[in-house]
Amino acid sequence: MREVAILGIGQTKFGELWDRSFREIGIEAGFQALVDAKLSSHDLGALYLGNMASGSLIDQEHIAPLILDYAGLSGHHFPAIRVEGGGASGALALHQGYLAVASGAHDFVVVGGAEKLTDVPDTEGNRIATSTADHEWEAVFGATLPSLWALMARRHMFEHGTTREELAQVAVHAHEMGSKNPNAHYRNRLSLDAVLHATPVAEPLGMLDCAPLSDGAAAVVLGPLERARKFTDTPVRIAASQVACDSMAVQHRRDLTTLDSTVVAAKRAFAQARRAPADVHVLELNDSYTIAALMGLEDLGFARKGESGKRFSAGEFRGGEGLSVNPSGGLKAQGAPFGAVGVAQAVEIVRQLRGEAGDRQRPGAALGMTQTVGGTGATSVVHLFERAN
Amino acid sequence: MREVAILGIGQTKFGELWDRSFREIGIEAGFQALVDAKLSSHDLGALYLGNMASGSLIDQEHIAPLILDYAGLSGHHFPAIRVEGGGASGALALHQGYLAVASGAHDFVVVGGAEKLTDVPDTEGNRIATSTADHEWEAVFGATLPSLWALMARRHMFEHGTTREELAQVAVHAHEMGSKNPNAHYRNRLSLDAVLHATPVAEPLGMLDCAPLSDGAAAVVLGPLERARKFTDTPVRIAASQVACDSMAVQHRRDLTTLDSTVVAAKRAFAQARRAPADVHVLELNDSYTIAALMGLEDLGFARKGESGKRFSAGEFRGGEGLSVNPSGGLKAQGAPFGAVGVAQAVEIVRQLRGEAGDRQRPGAALGMTQTVGGTGATSVVHLFERAN
Repeated sequence: MREVAILGIGQTKFGELWDRSFREIGIEAGFQALVDAKLSSHDLGALYLGNMASGSLIDQEHIAPLILDYAGLSGHHFPAIRVEGGGASGALALHQGYLAVASGAHDFVVVGGAEKLTDVPDTEGNRIATSTADHEWEAVFGATLPSLWALMARRHMFEHGTTREELAQVAVHAHEMGSKNPNAHYRNRLSLDAVLHATPVAEPLGMLDCAPLSDGAAAVVLGPLERARKFTDTPVRIAASQVACDSMAVQHRRDLTTLDSTVVAAKRAFAQARRAPADVHVLELNDSYTIAALMGLEDLGFARKGESGKRFSAGEFRGGEGLSVNPSGGLKAQGAPFGAVGVAQAVEIVRQLRGEAGDRQRPGAALGMTQTVGGTGATSVVHLFERAN
Repeated sequence: MREVAILGIGQTKFGELWDRSFREIGIEAGFQALVDAKLSSHDLGALYLGNMASGSLIDQEHIAPLILDYAGLSGHHFPAIRVEGGGASGALALHQGYLAVASGAHDFVVVGGAEKLTDVPDTEGNRIATSTADHEWEAVFGATLPSLWALMARRHMFEHGTTREELAQVAVHAHEMGSKNPNAHYRNRLSLDAVLHATPVAEPLGMLDCAPLSDGAAAVVLGPLERARKFTDTPVRIAASQVACDSMAVQHRRDLTTLDSTVVAAKRAFAQARRAPADVHVLELNDSYTIAALMGLEDLGFARKGESGKRFSAGEFRGGEGLSVNPSGGLKAQGAPFGAVGVAQAVEIVRQLRGEAGDRQRPGAALGMTQTVGGTGATSVVHLFERAN
C-alpha cells in the first residue's frame, strides 16, 4: 500500500454554535482543509464523513452526500460515505480515508467529522451519548455513559490507589491548554478546588470531570505522500492507522481498569510505524471523562498501570520537553462534538508537527499520536503521524 | 489491488421478526456466511456493517462492535465499522469490505447488513425513511419519501408516456418472484388489478407500489480470489464496486426522470469490469417504489430512457434467457430492511451465479449486477459479480 499524507486541515470553533446548521459547519471545515491543501475540488476522489447521531439529533440520515451537495460538489458524483462508531466515528472515517488512498482506490480524499449536539436538550444529548453503550445490558437498567466511566474510575482508585485529586488534575490541565486554543469550547482556567467541588454527576466524577456536549466540525485532506510536496511544504505522513474493538458492556471486559481495544490498537499502530511510546512527542487522547485520560496513558504504553495519576499530578505529560498530552485542550476543554473528535485530534497533531500551534506548541514535535474512543471503549482508533519534511 | 471473491453468504428471513432482536438477526446472517465459507472466525480481519438508523429505531448507535461482541468475536479485537448511506448502507459496507481486501489491509472480512424496522410504528418507520431525503429542503415542507418518488413517477409519465399499468407490472413481477423465495417478506402473488386499486399513497403510487418496512439481515464473507478455492468450489469474483453521489433534494437534480448517481456508478462499474449491459444475466435493482425499478433499468443502461415500462410490461427482464431482474422478489416482495438490502442483493446474485436459486434460477447465469439506492438517489452503489469457477 502507498504512503499517505495529510495535505490540509480545517476546523470550526467548537462550542454552542446555535447560529449555524450542521451542513454549514461541515462545509466550513471541509473548505478550510481544501484551501489549506491548495487542492481543487476537481482533484477529489471521495469524501468520508464521521458522524455519530445525526438521525437522532437533526432527523437527518444520509448526511455524507448532503454535505457534498451543500459544498457544491455533487456535480462530480464522487462517493460520499458516512462512517459511525460512537465517539470514534471521526477517527474511523480517517481510517477509511487512509485505506482509500493507501490502496490506490483514490488519490485525494476529504475526511470530515461533524456533530451538532446543542440543538437538542442536554438530557436528550446524554441519552444519545448513552446509545453508544450496550442498550440491552446497560442502558435499559439505567446505566449512563458517565456512570459507566465512574465505575471504571472507582475500580481504578480501588486497585491502583488513584485519587480523586489525580482525576481532577486532568480537567485542570485540559482547561489550561484550552485557554490557549482559539477554537476551544471552554477557554477558562479551572482550579483544582473548582473541579473537586463541582456538582456531582456519578461519584467520583463531577460536572467538571466530564467533557461537554459541543457542536463542531473538522476536516483533513489526504493524498499520496509521493505527490504531497506539490501541494504543501509541510506534509504529515500517516505512519499508522489502526482500529480495535472490544465488548460493548463494561461488565463483560477482562479488566475494568483497562481498555483492551486501546491496548491492541496501540500495539498494532506502533508495530505498523516501527516506533515505540518513547518516540512520541505529542498525543491527543480521549478525555471524555477524566478517568479515561489516565487509563489511556496506561493503555497506550506511556505509563505503567496505576501510575498515570501520580505522574500526571506531578506535572508530567503537561508540556515542556517530554510527551505533551492534549495540547488542544482535549475533549474536556476544546469540546466533544462526537463525530468530529477524531478528525479534530488529527488536525491538532498536524498543527503541532508543522510548528503552527502557537502558545501550545510542543517544541520540536516530529511524531504525534491520537487515541479516539467510542462509547466506553468498545471501539478504539489509534493513529501515528510523522513530520515528513 | 487484489481480486476479491465472495466465499460465503448468509441471510435471515425478511419480514416482521418480532420474536428476534437486532443483534440476533445480525449474528444469524453472519454465522451462516462464515459456515458457508468454511472459515474460522480466527481468520477474520474485520467486520463492516451496513445499517441506516439503529440510533432512531432501537436507541443503539455503535452497533458494529455490538454485533461482533454478541457473535462472541470481541476477543479477537478486530475492527468492526458501521457504514451508513440510507438504503444504500449495506452496499456501501460491501464497498468498504471490498476495498479492505483489495488493498491487502485484511485477508478475510465479513460484510453484514441489518435493520429492525417493525419494532416501531409504521409512521415512525416512514418518518425515519424520509430522513434520507433533504431535511431542510424537503422533509420540513412535508415531502415524504413516497411523495418524492411519486414526483419522479409523474414526470416520467409526462415526459415518456409511461403508464400507471406499466408501473404496476413491477410490483406484479416482484411478488411473482417473491412467491419462489423462502426468505421473502411477501410470498403472495399480486394481480395487476390489485396493484392498480390499492390504497393510494402518493399519486400515482399506491400501497402496492411501495416496498414494505421489513426486519432482516444478510452477510457475505470476502477474501482474496487467489485463495478462494481453498474455501469454496464456487467462488464469485467482485468484478466492480462503484459508488456515486448526487444532490440530496430531488428539485436540485438535472433531470427528474434520471438518477445521475446510478448512471455514473454504472458507467464506472462497466469500465472497471470491462463489460457492457448486454453481458449481464441477472440484476438485483432498487424497486423501493415501482418507478425506481423502471428508472433503474434505464439509468443502468438496460433500456433507453422512456422505454423500460413498455418493455417490462411486454414481459422482458422477467425470466427466461434474457436479463432476469430481481429474482429475489426485490425490495417490494423480498422486503426492504434498509441497511440489509445491498448485502441481500449480493447474496441473491451469488446464489444465481452458483446455480443454487431453485425455482427462480436464471439458467446459465455467469455475470450479475446489483444497484442499491439511498433515499431518492443521492447515493447509488453498483456492483458486478462474476462466476469464477
